[in-house]
Amino acid sequence: MQAQLIALDWGTSSLRAYKLGPAGVVLEQRSLASGIMHLPTEPRDIAGVRCADGFELAFDAACGDWLDAQPDLPVIACGMVGSAQGWSEATYRNTPVDVASLGQALHRVRSLRGVDVHIVPGVIEQAGLPNVMRGEETQVLGVLQGLGANALIGLPGSHSKWVEVVDGRITHFDTFMTGEVFAVLSKHSLLGRTQQICEQFQAEAFDRGVRVALSQDGQRGVLSTLFSARTLGLTGELTAQQQPDYLSGLLIGHELAGLPDRIQPIILVGAAPLCSRYQRALALCGFAHVSLAQEATERGLWQLAVAAGLTQPVLEA
Amino acid sequence: MQAQLIALDWGTSSLRAYKLGPAGVVLEQRSLASGIMHLPTEPRDIAGVRCADGFELAFDAACGDWLDAQPDLPVIACGMVGSAQGWSEATYRNTPVDVASLGQALHRVRSLRGVDVHIVPGVIEQAGLPNVMRGEETQVLGVLQGLGANALIGLPGSHSKWVEVVDGRITHFDTFMTGEVFAVLSKHSLLGRTQQICEQFQAEAFDRGVRVALSQDGQRGVLSTLFSARTLGLTGELTAQQQPDYLSGLLIGHELAGLPDRIQPIILVGAAPLCSRYQRALALCGFAHVSLAQEATERGLWQLAVAAGLTQPVLEA
Repeated sequence: MQAQLIALDWGTSSLRAYKLGPAGVVLEQRSLASGIMHLPTEPRDIAGVRCADGFELAFDAACGDWLDAQPDLPVIACGMVGSAQGWSEATYRNTPVDVASLGQALHRVRSLRGVDVHIVPGVIEQAGLPNVMRGEETQVLGVLQGLGANALIGLPGSHSKWVEVVDGRITHFDTFMTGEVFAVLSKHSLLGRTQQICEQFQAEAFDRGVRVALSQDGQRGVLSTLFSARTLGLTGELTAQQQPDYLSGLLIGHELAGLPDRIQPIILVGAAPLCSRYQRALALCGFAHVSLAQEATERGLWQLAVAAGLTQPVLEA
Repeated sequence: MQAQLIALDWGTSSLRAYKLGPAGVVLEQRSLASGIMHLPTEPRDIAGVRCADGFELAFDAACGDWLDAQPDLPVIACGMVGSAQGWSEATYRNTPVDVASLGQALHRVRSLRGVDVHIVPGVIEQAGLPNVMRGEETQVLGVLQGLGANALIGLPGSHSKWVEVVDGRITHFDTFMTGEVFAVLSKHSLLGRTQQICEQFQAEAFDRGVRVALSQDGQRGVLSTLFSARTLGLTGELTAQQQPDYLSGLLIGHELAGLPDRIQPIILVGAAPLCSRYQRALALCGFAHVSLAQEATERGLWQLAVAAGLTQPVLEA
């Protein structure tokens, strides 16, 4: 099949490149470590010019050969590549946004080989406390394809996002620093000192953490319940091996306790092991309709490229 | 005036020694860096014996000369010196406790020079999530002297304690890891990267943080509001210098939002600059009757020594 689009998922620590065929089918994909904070530094010739620019070098490594073979392929990219620290800043778009409005707002940067890279802008919400995302908006739009009009989409991670979709539009989202708080507490706080990392998932301890977050004790907030990760160790109710998963369940439970409960269904996007923790915790919270989405980023990039007129929605007869 | 009691406030990082006279008046005091995690290691002769035990060495440095002058002085100590990592473990006492019951439960360790050190046990609460304190119980009992029967006593710090006193007894307490969470986030998380330490207290930013914690946005919990310390920087609403005090206000606000509001008055015990932050935040929360306590530890140790019969409450005629 003939390629139709090059789609780049270009974040802080990695760069994934997809060659997409008709209707967005994935023909080939690659993963590089060249996130915007880990760009190549070794100068190389690109289009006959000696080049030392990290973005150009990473771009060339990711899909230079695809463009050599098919120079007119359109290119779209999402993620931190469009941030102030990225290749070229794609200014945030205000909520509400949908595929059509974001697709019309792609930001172009001309690469050394003369090909335009179309960068998806991040999204900002400015009602109340400001909130931002870059890359997640594309995943959300990829998930929406084939769904009903409303959904609550969770993207667990260092900074988990929960995105509310109403009538096919992103209307509101929240960010929870759950993953990063877990990491810094485990590594740098008193709680980490008595923890022992265990290969096997400690389901009972995890569930207990979730339940504590949802309990009356949890109402005082996570700054209060955190100390129980230590005291339950002191009283012999948690072993050193159980403490990391207890803390994980506790933090995820506090995150989920803050979710709006009026929007269904819930769809999770992200790495399978983490999504499976969230799915488990959501069940304990009483959320019944939870599913996992696959290939959200490449589907979102395809949808946006179609909306921008960079490619055709279906193969022409 | 003749000394009546040696009182030691012996924590993780420091050791404070008080020589108390009639009615508990402070005759002399010293501060050493010999907390239980920073004990002396240089062997020395104590009571004619070569000694390398860190607790003995620290004890001798703190009050050996006082005991040389007055060998029958009773000695009382509180804090982490009674923990499993301390000189000798003083098992936790269950809530409720008061001066009389804790005073009857002092744990004795015989020092090399033949003097008994009476260690105040920590307190544990086992209803619901377990909670523990060591040292704070003594401060609370010191504060109670001269107060009405009921009070809510706050001890801000790395692990802030909030202690409910009903009818002169410690009935319940909570621990908030506010100070430690602030420290690890500032030092090790994304939030620290854009912060700039500023000598001057940024009152407006601090108040804003408190208000966000108390707002509807705050209801989703601190894992959610934390990200605003970054986004308010991105949108130009907080300068780099304002971010640390915003984060401080935000965390303290979340702590205070979890307090019971049925107990008055509120009394704060601790370092003046930190208590002044809490006092400011409590005012924003609508708590009207807040005062600061002085000399809580030495007063508590005196009360407990009297209850234990180690010393006389007032000078005999």
